[in-house]
Amino acid sequence: MTLKVFGDRMSQPSRAVILFCKVNNIEFEEVTIDVVKRQHLSQQFAEINPMRQVPAIVDGRFKLFESHAILIYLSCAFPGVADHWYPADVSKRAKIHSVLDWHHLNLRYGAFLHTTLGPTLGRPLNPGAAANAKKILESSLAKIESVWLKGSGKFLLGSYQPSIADVSLVCEIMELEVLDEKDRFRILSPYKKVGVWIEATKASMQPYFDDVHGILYGSKEKYQKQREIATLHSKTRRLFNWFDYEHYYKHVM
Amino acid sequence: MTLKVFGDRMSQPSRAVILFCKVNNIEFEEVTIDVVKRQHLSQQFAEINPMRQVPAIVDGRFKLFESHAILIYLSCAFPGVADHWYPADVSKRAKIHSVLDWHHLNLRYGAFLHTTLGPTLGRPLNPGAAANAKKILESSLAKIESVWLKGSGKFLLGSYQPSIADVSLVCEIMELEVLDEKDRFRILSPYKKVGVWIEATKASMQPYFDDVHGILYGSKEKYQKQREIATLHSKTRRLFNWFDYEHYYKHVM
Repeated sequence: MTLKVFGDRMSQPSRAVILFCKVNNIEFEEVTIDVVKRQHLSQQFAEINPMRQVPAIVDGRFKLFESHAILIYLSCAFPGVADHWYPADVSKRAKIHSVLDWHHLNLRYGAFLHTTLGPTLGRPLNPGAAANAKKILESSLAKIESVWLKGSGKFLLGSYQPSIADVSLVCEIMELEVLDEKDRFRILSPYKKVGVWIEATKASMQPYFDDVHGILYGSKEKYQKQREIATLHSKTRRLFNWFDYEHYYKHVM
Repeated sequence: MTLKVFGDRMSQPSRAVILFCKVNNIEFEEVTIDVVKRQHLSQQFAEINPMRQVPAIVDGRFKLFESHAILIYLSCAFPGVADHWYPADVSKRAKIHSVLDWHHLNLRYGAFLHTTLGPTLGRPLNPGAAANAKKILESSLAKIESVWLKGSGKFLLGSYQPSIADVSLVCEIMELEVLDEKDRFRILSPYKKVGVWIEATKASMQPYFDDVHGILYGSKEKYQKQREIATLHSKTRRLFNWFDYEHYYKHVM
């Protein structure tokens, strides 16, 4: 029975799992659970994952959810996966767990992504939450730069080859793609090693990386158009205000 | 060289690691990093954990942080640890990872504990955050009851013996000890299986469980006294208000 991966490519942990399968030639069937259509809340999906979150997998009779747990399981249960993804060595493995656990409460944290990206996606801006989100994001990028990318290799933990931690964290950072190019540059450019690491991780997983992120690249264009329309509206409004002012100046004052 | 555990017994993940070492007869030296005294922010501690958080361990030349990563490492690196704590079986291990990862973004989540316990500890109450915290807590307990405690055994994943997931989650829930007994009962009593599980996990790790939680039991008494003083103040204030009203009634009206 083929492995089934239940996910939504708009969700970063889903992309990490799908990407990992493709890169490692793990045969799988992708089952799309459209989160916008609230398919993850259906009773049918609750049979797969009672927590009603994507991604989840079914391997024969074995069901599993939580993307880090899935990545580790796939590394161990499928013999074709190279050792560097999740090394057998206890100490190396421990360091990868440490990165993944740190990721949960820092880079991922949910809040910062939703609030930083919220305005881009047309959601209302909560200034307090956005400022906090920005702080967590910058602090996380600084820690990746100074702690996790310390060492001679281009990958996390100073390695010369990527691990599941690289897949998971880079898929998270790719969310920034939907921001305006200038904003994205402003956020990422202070972290030189982070930039090199993102490109190295992408390159190590091509052509699958771009394939799996296609949906995000598509969204980027859509949001860019929305931003252009919003800017045009704002300019029209300024023109209208200016016109009103001229009218007022000539006829009322 | 003996294993060193850097922690503060007031922090639940520190207690989980210390407890695990004691239960499994792992020889270690406990180095207290007093978080209230901000010792975790010192340059000296940053040499151990650049993220400046407790717990962290040093095993020979190997340094590690993040409590889940530490519990897994100890299970694998110390041969005396029984298999049930972190089974060698890939599927069983995967399920334990799944519980631990879920824990990060749900039961632990930080926010709910700080805000639920905030008022107890004399911190200002933010009603919005407290309501959200309560919701996350209740939802997490309901999921533990209906998902993780499904099965015939008393422990998580329906097991008959505890795993590192039981240690980690019960240490988190023990934070509720510092609440008023009535509040604690109100929160926990709807979840019958959770109650049985907490007691079974405690019993499986005695006498070490009570030893390591001694600091929390001490805090419980301290906060109970603070609450009694606050109640007394509130009664005095009501009496004073009542007296003023009588005075006004007699002499002014």
